Amino acid sequence: MQTDTVAALDIGGTKIAGALVDGSGRILVRAQRPTPAQEDGEAVMGAVAEVLAEVAASPLWSSATAVGIGSAGPVDASTGTVSPVNVPGWRDFPLVERVSAATGGLPVTLVGDGVAITAAEHWQGAARGYDDALCMVVSTGVGGGLVLGGKLHPGPTGNSGHIGHISVDLDGDLCPCGGRGCVERIASGPNIARRALEGGWQPGADGDASAAAVAAAARAGHPVAIASFERAAKALAAGIAATATLVEIRIAVIGGGVANAGEVLFAPLRRSLRDYATLSFVQDLTIAPALTGGDAGLVGAAAAASLGARDDTAAPVAG
Amino acid sequence: MQTDTVAALDIGGTKIAGALVDGSGRILVRAQRPTPAQEDGEAVMGAVAEVLAEVAASPLWSSATAVGIGSAGPVDASTGTVSPVNVPGWRDFPLVERVSAATGGLPVTLVGDGVAITAAEHWQGAARGYDDALCMVVSTGVGGGLVLGGKLHPGPTGNSGHIGHISVDLDGDLCPCGGRGCVERIASGPNIARRALEGGWQPGADGDASAAAVAAAARAGHPVAIASFERAAKALAAGIAATATLVEIRIAVIGGGVANAGEVLFAPLRRSLRDYATLSFVQDLTIAPALTGGDAGLVGAAAAASLGARDDTAAPVAG
Repeated sequence: MQTDTVAALDIGGTKIAGALVDGSGRILVRAQRPTPAQEDGEAVMGAVAEVLAEVAASPLWSSATAVGIGSAGPVDASTGTVSPVNVPGWRDFPLVERVSAATGGLPVTLVGDGVAITAAEHWQGAARGYDDALCMVVSTGVGGGLVLGGKLHPGPTGNSGHIGHISVDLDGDLCPCGGRGCVERIASGPNIARRALEGGWQPGADGDASAAAVAAAARAGHPVAIASFERAAKALAAGIAATATLVEIRIAVIGGGVANAGEVLFAPLRRSLRDYATLSFVQDLTIAPALTGGDAGLVGAAAAASLGARDDTAAPVAG
Repeated sequence: MQTDTVAALDIGGTKIAGALVDGSGRILVRAQRPTPAQEDGEAVMGAVAEVLAEVAASPLWSSATAVGIGSAGPVDASTGTVSPVNVPGWRDFPLVERVSAATGGLPVTLVGDGVAITAAEHWQGAARGYDDALCMVVSTGVGGGLVLGGKLHPGPTGNSGHIGHISVDLDGDLCPCGGRGCVERIASGPNIARRALEGGWQPGADGDASAAAVAAAARAGHPVAIASFERAAKALAAGIAATATLVEIRIAVIGGGVANAGEVLFAPLRRSLRDYATLSFVQDLTIAPALTGGDAGLVGAAAAASLGARDDTAAPVAG
């Protein structure tokens, strides 16, 4: 006998992935296309439709009871539309309606990609068992999501937990979002690399000027590389402490490429956290690396849809 | 026939107030004592007991079904203890147990004072009808509380919404809490006054060097006074925008003595908010002055207790 599954979509600026996910979070069927990010909105939707068609071709498709979408933001779960910064052809694009139509009217739940990854980490990763958690991705950008009172907290539009764009330096550098001194503006991979280069660090013979190369230099003791990670850690610490002080999270889980730097990031982050998480109710905050991997977006989108079916905090918005 | 009431306690560093509050938020009986803040813990508890005894002497006392306490923080609702910064005799003081014993075993709900005021503003004030709100007090300190998804969100220990101690300036001045660049360190009344004095503003013949006097000077066009309020407004804007970006609040309600400065504060606050609340889902954030007055702490403590009786997000912790 077939058990119920959830169809999941993970939509980013580089790839569009789809899957059937079972009640244990296992991926039973998987499909993927590159995102035609510079083409018009219908072309991007065409890639989504191809992914869905490939997944729907599986004999298991009949077991799908809902669709979960985790999308690059901003999203608007209240209207079912998405406007991903890196997909200019989609502005207020009615993704929920289109996916619902393409799947014969299945209920569709839409959340931001940070919220989806949080759902995955809470279900199967480092945030498992925590009723109040922040889960982050520190990579090209900085994103996140929240679990509050034991439940995923997508917020009214599915964007809650957007820690990358809170200001921790109100007089700081302008951020592409229009703000100043945002966590992402200081702690993202490209900003770690930029700061190291500006400070006089030079890439090795391979020319690799990524944050991963800066991390390698920091491990080898290069002071400018170390300082750039320390600055990123300070911004992350201030942002995590702010989140804990506002909503009493007990753990902050950090994934993404920059988190792969390991102790080069986590050691100064734990130190800086003592400087910013000062009130009694936030002093015991745990910092942990993420445990879910590349399929976290799909697993989390499925989790968000499962929650949506039984919990008004992530209600399906169509279907 | 008597309808049910809730006994409320509002415990601050200056006064301890108690009341019986009916289901419409009306205060039927009221008592108050100065807080013997510099005496030992039992002396402070003695003042609480006197307030409770005075309220309990009313013939309406038999209608009380629960006790709500809003206390200066930090509080710990999970253990029923309080450690108010300005009441050194109380450190991990078992207030819930003591109040429960003093009231014959009524269920007791404990929240921080910022959470209590938020409950009042959501019930009867400017946040009424909003499912997602931040309510703040900007005064000698800066405190706050959150309504999320239509419900008061005290958090596991009753301290959520502590916006005064999130850092918006990670390299900024040390705050008495141990952090740096906290909203309170920039935007509280004493800091507005300090900055004006440091900038060369001088009090008038009456010697009044309070934030209210700085506000009067700002209204009269004094550039240093205006600049000090603008700086406070910027810090508040960054903190409010961070909160909105993290948990999707739709309104920020601001009360307290500094908010009485009116447009001297609110005009630059609305301007600065445009610089920090940049993402699509936070751009429409409403800023509003608080509507509840001096009894908000009592009314809100009663509201928190009523919620506690029917909602696990603010569960009674004793009784």
